[in-house]
Amino acid sequence: MAPSSPATTEIRFVLDTVARIRELARHDSFSDASDDVVDAVLEGAGEFAAGVWGPLNGIGDTVGARWTEHGVVMPEGYASAYQAYVEGGWGTIGVPVVYGGQGLPFVLQTAVLELLGTANTGFALCPTLTVGAIEALVHHGSAEQQSLYLSHLATGAWTGTMNLTEPQAGSDVGALRAQALPRGDGTWSIKGTKIFISFGDHDMAENIVHLVLARTPNAPAGTRGISLFLVPKFRLDANGKPAEPNDVKAVSIEHKLGLHASPTCVLSFGDHDDCVGELIGPENGGMRAMFTMMNNARLNVGLQGVQIGEAATRKAVSYALERVQSARAGALDRTPVRIADHPDVRRMLMRMAAQTQAARALVYYAAAQVDLVKIGDDEARDRLELLTPLAKAHATDLGNEIASIGVQVHGGMGYVEETGAAQFFRDARITPIYEGTNGIQAADLVGRKLSLSGGKAFAALIDNLRATAKSAPLKQLIDCCENVGRRLAAADADDRLAASYPFLTMLSVAVCGWLMEKQHSAAADDEFGQAKKATTTFYLDQIVPEAIGLAAAASASADQLYAIDPALLLA
Amino acid sequence: MAPSSPATTEIRFVLDTVARIRELARHDSFSDASDDVVDAVLEGAGEFAAGVWGPLNGIGDTVGARWTEHGVVMPEGYASAYQAYVEGGWGTIGVPVVYGGQGLPFVLQTAVLELLGTANTGFALCPTLTVGAIEALVHHGSAEQQSLYLSHLATGAWTGTMNLTEPQAGSDVGALRAQALPRGDGTWSIKGTKIFISFGDHDMAENIVHLVLARTPNAPAGTRGISLFLVPKFRLDANGKPAEPNDVKAVSIEHKLGLHASPTCVLSFGDHDDCVGELIGPENGGMRAMFTMMNNARLNVGLQGVQIGEAATRKAVSYALERVQSARAGALDRTPVRIADHPDVRRMLMRMAAQTQAARALVYYAAAQVDLVKIGDDEARDRLELLTPLAKAHATDLGNEIASIGVQVHGGMGYVEETGAAQFFRDARITPIYEGTNGIQAADLVGRKLSLSGGKAFAALIDNLRATAKSAPLKQLIDCCENVGRRLAAADADDRLAASYPFLTMLSVAVCGWLMEKQHSAAADDEFGQAKKATTTFYLDQIVPEAIGLAAAASASADQLYAIDPALLLA
Repeated sequence: MAPSSPATTEIRFVLDTVARIRELARHDSFSDASDDVVDAVLEGAGEFAAGVWGPLNGIGDTVGARWTEHGVVMPEGYASAYQAYVEGGWGTIGVPVVYGGQGLPFVLQTAVLELLGTANTGFALCPTLTVGAIEALVHHGSAEQQSLYLSHLATGAWTGTMNLTEPQAGSDVGALRAQALPRGDGTWSIKGTKIFISFGDHDMAENIVHLVLARTPNAPAGTRGISLFLVPKFRLDANGKPAEPNDVKAVSIEHKLGLHASPTCVLSFGDHDDCVGELIGPENGGMRAMFTMMNNARLNVGLQGVQIGEAATRKAVSYALERVQSARAGALDRTPVRIADHPDVRRMLMRMAAQTQAARALVYYAAAQVDLVKIGDDEARDRLELLTPLAKAHATDLGNEIASIGVQVHGGMGYVEETGAAQFFRDARITPIYEGTNGIQAADLVGRKLSLSGGKAFAALIDNLRATAKSAPLKQLIDCCENVGRRLAAADADDRLAASYPFLTMLSVAVCGWLMEKQHSAAADDEFGQAKKATTTFYLDQIVPEAIGLAAAASASADQLYAIDPALLLA
Repeated sequence: MAPSSPATTEIRFVLDTVARIRELARHDSFSDASDDVVDAVLEGAGEFAAGVWGPLNGIGDTVGARWTEHGVVMPEGYASAYQAYVEGGWGTIGVPVVYGGQGLPFVLQTAVLELLGTANTGFALCPTLTVGAIEALVHHGSAEQQSLYLSHLATGAWTGTMNLTEPQAGSDVGALRAQALPRGDGTWSIKGTKIFISFGDHDMAENIVHLVLARTPNAPAGTRGISLFLVPKFRLDANGKPAEPNDVKAVSIEHKLGLHASPTCVLSFGDHDDCVGELIGPENGGMRAMFTMMNNARLNVGLQGVQIGEAATRKAVSYALERVQSARAGALDRTPVRIADHPDVRRMLMRMAAQTQAARALVYYAAAQVDLVKIGDDEARDRLELLTPLAKAHATDLGNEIASIGVQVHGGMGYVEETGAAQFFRDARITPIYEGTNGIQAADLVGRKLSLSGGKAFAALIDNLRATAKSAPLKQLIDCCENVGRRLAAADADDRLAASYPFLTMLSVAVCGWLMEKQHSAAADDEFGQAKKATTTFYLDQIVPEAIGLAAAASASADQLYAIDPALLLA
């Protein structure tokens, strides 16, 4: 099997056992998601991703997106590969039928996005952002906005962006200064500079739909005074076709550690006071709309951890099966063996595979809640809220860990760029940062999510985990999580935040362990099932206990952190 | 304090409390290492490193070493900065007086190398390799070789390289094929290709002394048939001056993830059958000589973890003290604060500082054993052997962890190359790979070092740790290490190796915890002492318990890894 063959067997298994897509398909809303359809989507997307997007991954990294005075130029082949994506309908999977989509489950769209991103993570960020724009318009757009924009976004013919960050307003969105002034005709004049705008400009689509947070005149300070605007790159003519350019320009792109196929733009709006935008939702309702965009975007960034984990694992396993070096230690036969047969290399491969599967289980389980919410499962709404920070933060942490091990498996060759293992390592590093840093995810977990529905959401999750957990370390970890979680819910802000990150990791591993154990039980005795039993056993026996070791850090008070002025660390 | 101010206060404290340099100085061999001299060396090296080498770190990364047909060209400024290093005598610190050195303790040389490498890790690799060549000649060179080469290597006027790896012989040194044929005049004709040769060529020194492993005719297969040769870039004339070029050429340099200031060369020896080398030590005695070079080199690679950790920490702390973003959570005052005041950012800074200090303590403690061996402390010989794999592997793992957190502290700016945080992240990634991968260090630990002197070396270390350990988690970790270590010593090769990496980490943290606790006890009540108490408390309370969580993995059998063919992970 080539390293680029997509993990469709594994994905199908996770859709069945973790996301329970067959149960979703029993509901009217998702009756199209039959076994055959799901298989066809996975197979088709896998082939398309590996065959069309995968081969462009290298040039995306080495040449990358380039800024020119006339706009951002993607590397050769990207525009046509993007067109093929649009024509294949791969963007429409999860979009409601009424807006021109296929109305299939969000978790199936997740699977398609995983396959695209495993082939080419930077490229797949473009449709990921479009999904956010679609969500914002579905939930907050006017009927006219929906009719003008949604079908084009659904196919991907037009792409979407999210414009939040400004130089002085990174994680603190409320500090943003971009302005929106009424033009008198119901539209708004947008003025300001946004930074870190992924795919803020490119040459692959007819239009780009910028969703921009800005302040209207006399808006309240902070997050309560923020509104969301739709700013097309090209204004629409009377027929709804992209026509004259709007007053928005990519003034530069960042020189980044990785993800070079994704242009990270500084966008300047209204340099000539002629940037026309439309308000989405009510004035000062921007934060709510933003969270609509961001929540699923957070799951999709978690999914990037899975994408990179999968790609790095396949590459490392393939290399370790081919590279022959040294005889087995302690073996009488002194013939050199493939390095995959050396115990510590095998440990690394097993860890990479187990962590990738754990990240996938976590993200797909969260994604399935999106679908359950759609079919009226109220408990799923809280569950989704609770799981979102875990899926975003822990899956991206794992993507980084896995990519780093992947470099290690390749030895000295791993450090040579041409090998390709280092690209995953570089690409992965942004994922714990953007879409809300992982620290902010941890703060969200202990700040808002632990106390969701008066703490019932957390208690219900713990109950669920405990109900089926069989492995002794997993049971112990669940107990630890419950104890720590209860204590944190009652702690003051500093103590809660000081412990937030180790607690997020512990709870994530508990959920992953629970989902891995479910998969272990469901595994058949075929080759796939044997491998699944091996990776899940490894996870439960070796990785779950590590998380128990975090209990001390998750129980420590903030006093330890505030004992000194951090300036003393420079002494 | 600027981020580039060197950590001389901390280094001096570690020299006193961990390396006990004052006790060393009581011995005749090191009587020159008075308090004044040590202070002067630290201050001078710190100023030189930060003032002369530090400013070249950026250009080393962005421009990097370049290959040309006429040899490798270093970035502008490197040659003169290197000359300043030679003239300052910074290379001579630890070299015996009889060979033109200052005969000061190895651990003080370690401190100088730390300061140089914190300012510019890639650059400092050059003198690091020269140290290896010096060690090989001191221990295995003939009197004539010593007199011809050593004084020039001691000053750094000539630099050294280590030529082990060939394409088919990476970690398996015994598989190398480079040949040495007798020329009839006592010299040898060397022929072969070596890869991954750091500073294999450059334009900073009058000569380069390549130490090359090769096989003589009819040599036994494997490692028993390897000999070490000295191959100068320029042959010496009758006066011992570099004269006509030898037949050795850098045919390319690698395009690497990081460490761009260090040219990683493919060296071709004997393309014209005219590469003259001299045998060092006895024929077929190459492995022993190589281990002489490599053992201290391993400590010095561990030291690179400290260098990068220190540089990344200073940069992150400085940034977090300046960057203002968001009010404190839970605070009535809604004024935005410096991000260092947010609990999770402070946790990251504290972790970076604590892990850097732990890595430093481990490496300096090991380095001090080199000096103790020199003054006849037999127990130190075993201790050094036992600690070397820990210092190399764990300190480099920590360098990577710290550099990654450093990127995170910078948020989105951390991903932008111009910020400089990403360079540490890229530079660090080679350190767990070269000079024996960390997996090989773990194999060395469980394979040779646990059973050193019939297991007495390990037992003595455990006894030492236990004798002073006060913290409850530390005591528990020491017990775990003892139990696991005893079990592994009796286990078969596969089980031992399967558990080797988690065990190496556990044992390293135990040693670090013990050394951090010692420092805690020795800390005064001044500002430095308060900071030291804070970082050591954090380490003992939060990081030591994490290592206890590795006990399960360190106790697992190899069966879990061999349950399936790893090819199934590609299913």
